[in-house]
Amino acid sequence: MLSYSSAQIRTLRLRSSVSRSLSPKIRSYLSKDSTLRARITSCGFTLTSIGSISSATTTTMASAEEARMPPAIPPPTPPVTKFKIALCQLAVTTDKEKNIAHARQIIESAAAKGAKLILLPEIWNSPYSNDSFPIYAEDIDTGGDASPSTAMLSELSRSLKITIVGGSIPERSGDRLYNTCCVFDTDGTLKAKHRKIHLFDIDIPGKMTFKESKTLTAGETPTIVDTDVGRIGIGICYDIRFQELAAIYAARGAHLLCYPGAFNMTTGPLHWELLQRARAADCQLYVATCSPARDTGSSYVAWGHSTLVGPFGEVLATTEHDEAIVISEIDYSLIEQRRTYLPFQTQRRGDLYQLVDVQRLGSTKSG
Amino acid sequence: MLSYSSAQIRTLRLRSSVSRSLSPKIRSYLSKDSTLRARITSCGFTLTSIGSISSATTTTMASAEEARMPPAIPPPTPPVTKFKIALCQLAVTTDKEKNIAHARQIIESAAAKGAKLILLPEIWNSPYSNDSFPIYAEDIDTGGDASPSTAMLSELSRSLKITIVGGSIPERSGDRLYNTCCVFDTDGTLKAKHRKIHLFDIDIPGKMTFKESKTLTAGETPTIVDTDVGRIGIGICYDIRFQELAAIYAARGAHLLCYPGAFNMTTGPLHWELLQRARAADCQLYVATCSPARDTGSSYVAWGHSTLVGPFGEVLATTEHDEAIVISEIDYSLIEQRRTYLPFQTQRRGDLYQLVDVQRLGSTKSG
Repeated sequence: MLSYSSAQIRTLRLRSSVSRSLSPKIRSYLSKDSTLRARITSCGFTLTSIGSISSATTTTMASAEEARMPPAIPPPTPPVTKFKIALCQLAVTTDKEKNIAHARQIIESAAAKGAKLILLPEIWNSPYSNDSFPIYAEDIDTGGDASPSTAMLSELSRSLKITIVGGSIPERSGDRLYNTCCVFDTDGTLKAKHRKIHLFDIDIPGKMTFKESKTLTAGETPTIVDTDVGRIGIGICYDIRFQELAAIYAARGAHLLCYPGAFNMTTGPLHWELLQRARAADCQLYVATCSPARDTGSSYVAWGHSTLVGPFGEVLATTEHDEAIVISEIDYSLIEQRRTYLPFQTQRRGDLYQLVDVQRLGSTKSG
Repeated sequence: MLSYSSAQIRTLRLRSSVSRSLSPKIRSYLSKDSTLRARITSCGFTLTSIGSISSATTTTMASAEEARMPPAIPPPTPPVTKFKIALCQLAVTTDKEKNIAHARQIIESAAAKGAKLILLPEIWNSPYSNDSFPIYAEDIDTGGDASPSTAMLSELSRSLKITIVGGSIPERSGDRLYNTCCVFDTDGTLKAKHRKIHLFDIDIPGKMTFKESKTLTAGETPTIVDTDVGRIGIGICYDIRFQELAAIYAARGAHLLCYPGAFNMTTGPLHWELLQRARAADCQLYVATCSPARDTGSSYVAWGHSTLVGPFGEVLATTEHDEAIVISEIDYSLIEQRRTYLPFQTQRRGDLYQLVDVQRLGSTKSG
């Protein structure tokens, strides 16, 4: 008689779980429709009776803690509280070997200036274009000669004893291509690999049209990693547009979000700084971004303006569009201070909204 | 043997519902602990068996639509697409009668300039202080002589055929006080009443300490209202800091968010414009704010800078800190255009994060 979409069924299940308050209309549907009842129970639950659901209608004044599901965890004590970060706004050419050699030189230079964390740009070993991605892509999992870009990063992180958030490169894995960020620990270990979750598919007529999905596949998981310089959540460029990703990293205890990114001459002036500052101020943590330097001769012209933002949303260091190494100090003690000043964690309204971190909810760790 | 908090129990219930994927650790707990099983089933569900949960482990690649729960609905076709809004940055005194008479005059002036929607500041009939709130508070529900401020707004909205988002005033309801925004339709009807959800309790030592919760009670519901000038979500000042509220209004089809607000000389320069632009750009809708004019002689000095922001996060009109009427045009057709350019609605990752609008999920309408 009545039909329901999968989404509606999921909504019913979720509603039963979250609010424990089924509306009279829903109870009426349930009492009349055995198929609906069967579909709701198909996930391993049984409705004991329509009556018991009705009587279970209780309003719970959920706590601020429940605005994040699972509840947010505070950032762990980091191995170091104060250290220098370097944002290496690299000039990128069409010559991959040259790009790798140049990145090596700039990283060495940044480390010599005292940087303990190095952030590279999005797609730093290749031009940023759908034509180039398949040609410049590397097999990161095989490594060695199959991935000279990440081999260099691993070697330098070990020899220089620095943490590297290696911007991103096109990754080949089987017959798929990804836009991938590798994080190397101070012993050269590949500590984490983030595949861009939100592909850059936009169409601003006459100004900027790009469809990464023509060649790339989206990643399947958020990436947060404990390093010698704190707990770092990774996003790549367009990932920064989705506030939910930043918020779930914050709820997983991140100190810092790193976004390698190549905004362009349209979206750069519109949104690049705004989004960084918004994520930092809303999540009360550090945000670091790194763009390639601007090359007005390339098909995709990057905005530049690599920036470090503090946990009040304040720009701590930035640059224009030429090649540059931005070096600035991070002080994680400010995170706690800012959160004491403006205690959002205890002020959110879990009775009105809840942000669900689906994978953390489903993982063993959160049990 | 094992003990669980209420929050953990809720997490287990939610996890079962959302991910249908219980970890081996959880399944092991469940199989060993009858009390835990009983607590999970107490909301009207029964676990059919530990085995069936185990076998129900399925991964669903949820759609972008599921990043909002219930799924987002597009904004309705508004009665008008283009119209003028007036942000009335009023000077506020300690004399309530004078404040009401002055607001009347400014509203008439704004309407004479063609404004169809008038936005007033937070706490415009009273000084902004915990000492003043009880003294200046009005009984809005009783109305008439018990609420001269809203009686004036109702009269003007009817006589001038304008929509008024009436900033906020201290409201007395029984023995409680609220910081309340009233929305009046063009026929003078009180269409909606928003009680500030997130009370302004902050402590930035030596700069700004304020605790609204000393005198005020927080509201219990988000407020979104269909008017002659579109679907409007309401927040008051500190409410703007919580991105989740803006996002659930967007998912309920808002065209415009109105935030009467009185940021101060510390938080104003830090965050006032940033937050407005962030909410507009992330939600791809209009955001209008209205502050009282700055009075350096008062105990709480407002920042001013009432602003209209468009759905690309762009500042369309603003002012400094003196009394002013900011008049600017709103064009709702840009919402659809911006969302076509940057189609977040189809790009969100409901398989990774879900923002739950708890009250909409529990309401009959969403069934």
